Amino acid sequence: MRNVSIALLGCGTVGKGVIDLLAMNGPLIEEQLKTKITIKWVLIRDLQKYESMDLPEPIMLTTNFDDIINDDDVEIVVEVMGSADFAKECIEECFKRKKSVVSANKDLIADYGIPLLKLSQEHNADFQFEASVAGGIPIVRPMYSSLNSNIIEEIIGIMNGTTNYILSNMTEKGMSYEDALEEAKEKGYAEADPTNDVSGYDAARKIAILATLGFHSAVTFNDVTVEGIENITQEDIRHATEMGYVIKLLAIARQDDDGISLNVHPSFIRKGHPLANVGGAYNAVFVRGNCVGDVMMYGQGAGSLPTASAVVSDVMNVILHFNINITGQREFVWHEVKLKNQSSICAPYYLRMVVNNAPGVLAGISRVLADYNISIRSLLQKDETTEIAEIVILIDSSSDGLVKESLQKIESLSCVRKVANAIRVIEV
Amino acid sequence: MRNVSIALLGCGTVGKGVIDLLAMNGPLIEEQLKTKITIKWVLIRDLQKYESMDLPEPIMLTTNFDDIINDDDVEIVVEVMGSADFAKECIEECFKRKKSVVSANKDLIADYGIPLLKLSQEHNADFQFEASVAGGIPIVRPMYSSLNSNIIEEIIGIMNGTTNYILSNMTEKGMSYEDALEEAKEKGYAEADPTNDVSGYDAARKIAILATLGFHSAVTFNDVTVEGIENITQEDIRHATEMGYVIKLLAIARQDDDGISLNVHPSFIRKGHPLANVGGAYNAVFVRGNCVGDVMMYGQGAGSLPTASAVVSDVMNVILHFNINITGQREFVWHEVKLKNQSSICAPYYLRMVVNNAPGVLAGISRVLADYNISIRSLLQKDETTEIAEIVILIDSSSDGLVKESLQKIESLSCVRKVANAIRVIEV
Ligand SMILES: NC(=O)c1ccc[n+]([C@@H]2O[C@H](COP(=O)([O-])OP(=O)(O)OC[C@H]3O[C@@H](n4cnc5c(N)ncnc54)[C@H](OP(=O)(O)O)[C@@H]3O)[C@@H](O)[C@H]2O)c1
Ligand SMILES: NC(=O)c1ccc[n+]([C@@H]2O[C@H](COP(=O)([O-])OP(=O)(O)OC[C@H]3O[C@@H](n4cnc5c(N)ncnc54)[C@H](OP(=O)(O)O)[C@@H]3O)[C@@H](O)[C@H]2O)c1
Repeated sequence: MRNVSIALLGCGTVGKGVIDLLAMNGPLIEEQLKTKITIKWVLIRDLQKYESMDLPEPIMLTTNFDDIINDDDVEIVVEVMGSADFAKECIEECFKRKKSVVSANKDLIADYGIPLLKLSQEHNADFQFEASVAGGIPIVRPMYSSLNSNIIEEIIGIMNGTTNYILSNMTEKGMSYEDALEEAKEKGYAEADPTNDVSGYDAARKIAILATLGFHSAVTFNDVTVEGIENITQEDIRHATEMGYVIKLLAIARQDDDGISLNVHPSFIRKGHPLANVGGAYNAVFVRGNCVGDVMMYGQGAGSLPTASAVVSDVMNVILHFNINITGQREFVWHEVKLKNQSSICAPYYLRMVVNNAPGVLAGISRVLADYNISIRSLLQKDETTEIAEIVILIDSSSDGLVKESLQKIESLSCVRKVANAIRVIEV
Repeated sequence: MRNVSIALLGCGTVGKGVIDLLAMNGPLIEEQLKTKITIKWVLIRDLQKYESMDLPEPIMLTTNFDDIINDDDVEIVVEVMGSADFAKECIEECFKRKKSVVSANKDLIADYGIPLLKLSQEHNADFQFEASVAGGIPIVRPMYSSLNSNIIEEIIGIMNGTTNYILSNMTEKGMSYEDALEEAKEKGYAEADPTNDVSGYDAARKIAILATLGFHSAVTFNDVTVEGIENITQEDIRHATEMGYVIKLLAIARQDDDGISLNVHPSFIRKGHPLANVGGAYNAVFVRGNCVGDVMMYGQGAGSLPTASAVVSDVMNVILHFNINITGQREFVWHEVKLKNQSSICAPYYLRMVVNNAPGVLAGISRVLADYNISIRSLLQKDETTEIAEIVILIDSSSDGLVKESLQKIESLSCVRKVANAIRVIEV
């Protein structure tokens, strides 16, 4: 049986998962490939930290990338380090040496996916990155090889497990944002510095990757308008529940004749919708194609073995390509991008305001909205104390720009203490 | 630009969808393939019926398959007729002439998928059949090219839109089975003779195909134990709802060290489960891999354009294979199958019995269950009249064989009028 030697860059959650998965499922994988996969090298940066790790034969640990790049045996390099600059250098070096690369590195791919794909093809190498979006869920390959008969109109993802876990706990257990975040940290769902997740950057990277493939457009992380979940309170959650909605952090990519929009923001989504039921640390990606209609892929978007499942399936694809001599032969199409102006993007909104409990407040607020041609779908006033009241308004679909302007105007009304939140309602 | 000529066998719901889809999305498809797709022939059997159809140039209608098989221009044949014997003959003939085939024909593939795949490879032709399972939902290709790093443990599908539509209407609108079936016929979801759908045969074919790919095992339709939804009544639906369950027709394939089981039957599934929320004519396939964990694919399992989406993505794959000279090169692995004895398959059950409203009835029934070592999880007695009562029992996981025997014994008790239903509870 032919043997393919691979190297791992990094041996953390995902790297260890790859080692474990190959140990568990090796025979079935080899049978399918008629090829044996041997992990020859694992790159780490601190030998001491990994020395005591029980690694299967014949894995060698190294802190020197040169050991790997100069080893002609190594045909596939699996990049599971997660840094940006160093990982990019390594991957470029691999392509130049005709080594194929499998990567789970969304940070890198969201920014440099297309140039890296191009470089890989110049050198007849494969570049695969299924695990960079939604961990174990098959979505990257289905997007370009199963849904590619469609004009993709919309991609909506719950693609960050940490924020979904926090929001689920706020909804189901009535926890405050702070307590839910604390619990997520304790259980290992959130990192010590959770900014990347709770501010929406992680989801933004993933939607940039999917929009690149689905819309055949060269977009990057910088094209995504991002809003995190830090301002969601128990009040918002309760109002959502009462009104028949769930709050989720959605990553939304839309394409129509006028261009593309890319957003990450907390969203109201109707309870019956399949995305509303995606709980805990699960992920889901909802895609609307002009012919297939709505499809959704659901599963574990993170974790050692689930992510390794995607990484190893990529490795298997590369080996299948080796075996029939077609490495580096998948072509992609990219169109020029026309990004929509963020202020023109429309949605219904949920607005929550804290106001003085005085006559004329509602009239004042309604007046401002009417002036901006924004129509009110429903309105709820709750007296908090004799002095303060809370007003919750659901407005019909209005543009981001208009909503922002009107809220500034409302906040300047003397009777309004603050606009506490404005959350888009996503109707799919 | 290179041109690939294709022929359609059949021009019904799916065939017309393929024509429409290529008309709508042709430019984007051609750009991806760097190849133009031309439908040259459409095989039908009644020229008069199709004469008035507005077909785009240069499509030619024919009733003679020889026109197609003898046309060397035709590189791909799309079989969307749906018959069994004739379709099989046509496809075999195509392979022998080195024409690749895309088919949506689950009946054929559930029975002859493997021999046809083998024949295609002998002749260096491609054989693709994404649309044969769950219409537009990407599942066939993800199963063998994305989830293939896993040992697949379980595949559970809601893969028949007709029965799901009927059960959803019975649940949501309180309709009787008969009325729901009538409405499904009126709306075009059920055929005039709905046997194939309501008896579970259609779902059985699809689970046989998925089990073949997922378990690498040569199973066919005949290996599936099938039960339809004809006996589900409003009483069962109401009890399910009260107990926190939904009734769905599930197709279930399981694999463990002892072998494989393949079943289609109505099932209780807990309300919170993602499969429980798959409503109306939607389909979903839930897969459990030993590393990826639970993933689910959801979408439209039928319909003209959704199914055409899968068919055309298959055609695109074949053309990509043409363009890099790898047609017929995907290899599959099949293991010998050990099918489990049906009577050994275990599940908790919901049992509904109609009994005489007399003392000692419960004692009699409990006695029988105890004799078979079946333990009762919960029990509900409802007095229907002064004479008749209904008893609903949820039993702990017990083997199919034991349950059947015990129910026979219970039915022979003089106080029991009938065992009205026994439905498995699927705990995933
Ligand atoms: N975790 C998931 O569930 C998941 C899911 C999808 C995608 N991903 C992506 O997969 C990648 C890896 O994630 P992870 O969770 O496995 O991260 P991790 O647990 O932090 O592991 C990273 C590994 O890379 C090593 N490393 C980092 N920088 C290095 C350098 N410059 N030279 C040598 N070794 C270096 C680390 O070594 P030290 O121990 O010395 O730090 C560690 O072994 C990331 O791109 C991540 O976004 C992760
Ligand atoms: N409909 C769906 O949503 C769907 C979804 C997934 C898979 N499929 C599968 O796709 C296939 C086609 O389904 P469909 O719904 O399109 O069926 P359909 O609407 O009944 O169309 C079948 C077409 O094939 C023609 N045909 C049948 N036998 C023929 C023969 N011996 N010679 C020439 N033409 C023949 C029919 O002609 P006549 O008009 O003369 O009968 C008709 O044009 C089936 O295998 C089905 O299981 C369908």
